[in-house]
Amino acid sequence: MESSAVMVSRAVIGEWIESRRVQRFILTLIVINAVTLGLETSATMTARYGDVLYVIDRMILGVFVIEILIKLYAQRLDFFRRSWNVFDFIVIGIALIPASGPLAVLRALRVLRVLRLASVHPRLRFVVEALLKAIPGITSIAGLMLLVFYVAAVIATGLFGARFPEWFGSLAASLYTLFQVMTLESWSMGIVRPVMEAYPYAWLFFIPFILIATFTMLNLFIGIIVDTMQTMHEAQHAIERERIEETVHRDSLHVETELRALREEIASLRDELQRGREAP
Amino acid sequence: MESSAVMVSRAVIGEWIESRRVQRFILTLIVINAVTLGLETSATMTARYGDVLYVIDRMILGVFVIEILIKLYAQRLDFFRRSWNVFDFIVIGIALIPASGPLAVLRALRVLRVLRLASVHPRLRFVVEALLKAIPGITSIAGLMLLVFYVAAVIATGLFGARFPEWFGSLAASLYTLFQVMTLESWSMGIVRPVMEAYPYAWLFFIPFILIATFTMLNLFIGIIVDTMQTMHEAQHAIERERIEETVHRDSLHVETELRALREEIASLRDELQRGREAP
Amino acid sequence: MESSAVMVSRAVIGEWIESRRVQRFILTLIVINAVTLGLETSATMTARYGDVLYVIDRMILGVFVIEILIKLYAQRLDFFRRSWNVFDFIVIGIALIPASGPLAVLRALRVLRVLRLASVHPRLRFVVEALLKAIPGITSIAGLMLLVFYVAAVIATGLFGARFPEWFGSLAASLYTLFQVMTLESWSMGIVRPVMEAYPYAWLFFIPFILIATFTMLNLFIGIIVDTMQTMHEAQHAIERERIEETVHRDSLHVETELRALREEIASLRDELQRGREAP
Amino acid sequence: MESSAVMVSRAVIGEWIESRRVQRFILTLIVINAVTLGLETSATMTARYGDVLYVIDRMILGVFVIEILIKLYAQRLDFFRRSWNVFDFIVIGIALIPASGPLAVLRALRVLRVLRLASVHPRLRFVVEALLKAIPGITSIAGLMLLVFYVAAVIATGLFGARFPEWFGSLAASLYTLFQVMTLESWSMGIVRPVMEAYPYAWLFFIPFILIATFTMLNLFIGIIVDTMQTMHEAQHAIERERIEETVHRDSLHVETELRALREEIASLRDELQRGREAP
Repeated sequence: MESSAVMVSRAVIGEWIESRRVQRFILTLIVINAVTLGLETSATMTARYGDVLYVIDRMILGVFVIEILIKLYAQRLDFFRRSWNVFDFIVIGIALIPASGPLAVLRALRVLRVLRLASVHPRLRFVVEALLKAIPGITSIAGLMLLVFYVAAVIATGLFGARFPEWFGSLAASLYTLFQVMTLESWSMGIVRPVMEAYPYAWLFFIPFILIATFTMLNLFIGIIVDTMQTMHEAQHAIERERIEETVHRDSLHVETELRALREEIASLRDELQRGREAP
Repeated sequence: MESSAVMVSRAVIGEWIESRRVQRFILTLIVINAVTLGLETSATMTARYGDVLYVIDRMILGVFVIEILIKLYAQRLDFFRRSWNVFDFIVIGIALIPASGPLAVLRALRVLRVLRLASVHPRLRFVVEALLKAIPGITSIAGLMLLVFYVAAVIATGLFGARFPEWFGSLAASLYTLFQVMTLESWSMGIVRPVMEAYPYAWLFFIPFILIATFTMLNLFIGIIVDTMQTMHEAQHAIERERIEETVHRDSLHVETELRALREEIASLRDELQRGREAP
Repeated sequence: MESSAVMVSRAVIGEWIESRRVQRFILTLIVINAVTLGLETSATMTARYGDVLYVIDRMILGVFVIEILIKLYAQRLDFFRRSWNVFDFIVIGIALIPASGPLAVLRALRVLRVLRLASVHPRLRFVVEALLKAIPGITSIAGLMLLVFYVAAVIATGLFGARFPEWFGSLAASLYTLFQVMTLESWSMGIVRPVMEAYPYAWLFFIPFILIATFTMLNLFIGIIVDTMQTMHEAQHAIERERIEETVHRDSLHVETELRALREEIASLRDELQRGREAP
Repeated sequence: MESSAVMVSRAVIGEWIESRRVQRFILTLIVINAVTLGLETSATMTARYGDVLYVIDRMILGVFVIEILIKLYAQRLDFFRRSWNVFDFIVIGIALIPASGPLAVLRALRVLRVLRLASVHPRLRFVVEALLKAIPGITSIAGLMLLVFYVAAVIATGLFGARFPEWFGSLAASLYTLFQVMTLESWSMGIVRPVMEAYPYAWLFFIPFILIATFTMLNLFIGIIVDTMQTMHEAQHAIERERIEETVHRDSLHVETELRALREEIASLRDELQRGREAP
């Protein structure tokens, strides 16, 4: 059972770790870490200052680990509800796996830690969140894209796989080559012209594929533009409408005042008549 | 002559085949078929499980054929009025043609069947319909594009065909090469620089062609954006307008009610006077 | 001196040549001519039907010449006021120049005549006019682009001309190469990497050039979008505004009617009072 | 101490140097200088007219120096407050540094002077200012882009640096290669396919990088479009709103006036009654 004193300290420590001063300190460490990780890519720097760079890197990593442990202590399982926390957790976790043998590739991924800059720096964070917000609006069209790619890759493997195993030998190879074709990189001189020497009608497959793929990409692009503008417009139109309504309302209040004055005038007329009838 | 019982059963079976449960079953079959067709591209998989994959493929195809026959029975010639049905019909039809001899290429097109995912899955269907809706708005500009391509291809064949038969030897070759140039793929290092070694002024043809072709493409692109936004704006503006009109109308009704009350007030005042005059 | 009868016949013939039936006839001839000119690019077709194709081509050209002469007769110097006429005049003129010796290239340009399709077909004509309308809005930014290109070409010629005469040997060569770099075609593998082997800091010139050139192009593009949308919006906003004003006005008329009724009521009250005062 | 006469002359001379006539003269000199600097890139022109071109260039440079000195005299330290002045100052300054030995590269940069066209010509100036205005809105997203590039470059150097030193040997080499990959130039045939021969899973790094980089670029682009349109819309909506408000206000004023007249009518009616009662 927890006493309320412990709960208070959890809240206090949770607020402290998210305080502006601590976050700025973490930000500075990330930037320093970015520099040391950059320097480590240079063979001459590593030969001369390798030990120092290694120590700094380990120390900064230590601070990051402590930061996450404190957050975990303060927020417990709520910690994993915020996706930025999960991101930090994974990125730091990668650095802690001993990178030897088959996992040597993870050593190169240590620098992913520097991406924490985007989770700590408020403006970068805002931009990343804005970018991610565009994704739900394009899942359907991205799904269609995947479908087109899959079907085209199966066809290409069936048609050209035997003669061009390097490009279309397997489903994976075909998918990669079609992605290259969609980016228009060397699609003709590099891929389609050689293929056409063996299959003169290959363009009947590739030209429609390029047209469909780029047209779909274009619409994906347009989708994001239109979505962004719609959000922006709705907000602005609401403001404009409110302003117009306000003006209308103010005008209408004036009319109201006039109406009230008129009503009073009629009332006093009635009084006058009444007095006239009673007086004589 | 048909009895009404048969007609009822037509309607009932037509509704059943389009019911959510049946459609979901068909959707599942399409996904399974997509997987088996993908696995068949792998030589090792075909060697080991080829027979099984073939049987599954045939069975699923059988279900699809039955589905279409039922729909044909239920909707008769109305079946071909909906373009999605025509699409399904063609895609299944391709799989039924015996793919041997000169038609061996059709074997590779069997996978087009997987595109039925777009005709069955509601959201994909919606996206495809949205994409197709953009097409009528761009036919004029696409026509202009074709005209420019045709004229440029005739000129290129006349000017460079003799010296560069591979690229400009025939109208078809020129059209293909100009399409490549328009996508900017290797246009300079691959095509125009070699051509300029023979004809130093070739850039006088290619640079304007690139400028005109990309400018026209750009406008085609802009056309779609503007079209999409216009549709969206019209709807939204109508909503905003209605809200403003409603506010104005409410205020104005209020004034009207007030005025009517005043009139009645004055009318009753007059009645009172009348009665006052007649009474004594 | 011209009699008015001649003037009438000028007007009549001018109207006849622009009549729908004649224009449709001309349109048909253009399409036929497009086909014959396309067939002439094929050596086998020319060998077999060359004479026939030549005769058809000459006959159609003859009709076009007569058409222009009639228009010139009907409209005289006003003919050259409409830019579509000037376009037709030049395009037909090219076909009449004897294409021999140094002017052999003009033979290939005969097909430009087919572009008349855009001046005769109403929808294509509309699209071309819409495209041309976008040009005035981008002249300033295109001017800036030219300035940047000129300055960059002079610098590139000065820096890299001596070592890479093929790419940067003269101002013209540099302009062409920079245009290629701006389209991003083989800019790195083809041009900048080889240049960097001689001048390791060449990227300090090329990367900023690419960034500036593409950013400017992007803004040129945005300029057209925004322009097109502004025109469209202005029209639509005006419609919306008019509708709102109409509603407001209709409401206001109601209020007016009420006011008039009230005024009449008061007038009759006054009459009543008058009668009351006079009666006793 | 300065007498006011000197101050007056400062103001007078400051106005004179910015007067339309002087600016047009400077503009003409810039254009002439652009031509001479262009001609100097040609070896034959330099051989024949080198001396003349040199003299013209020096004279024009002399005028530019005097112009800046006059502006400095007239505006003193305020001169450096306007960024166009700073731009002119740097561009002219480059031309004055003796370009010999290690600074020979500066000779090629003399032509930057021609960019003054953009600071003197009003429309070009406006366009440049419009382009620069778009920059603040994209700094956050550009910062994110830099972060992504830096992290990707450190990873690429770590993973591929040993085997492909030319492309990924150092942080700078990796940054350059990734920039090339982002522009999609030869990314597959030139870079990724060779890398995949050594590291078959290299696409797991490059495909996501391309997707993230192009998606971010796309959003940067969209950001500018939306920003530009927002500015434009706000202005236009304000106009529309004012017009609607004006209409509503005019109608409402009319009603108000009418009501006041009615009130006065009733008031005079009451006065009449009052008088009627007092009179007899």
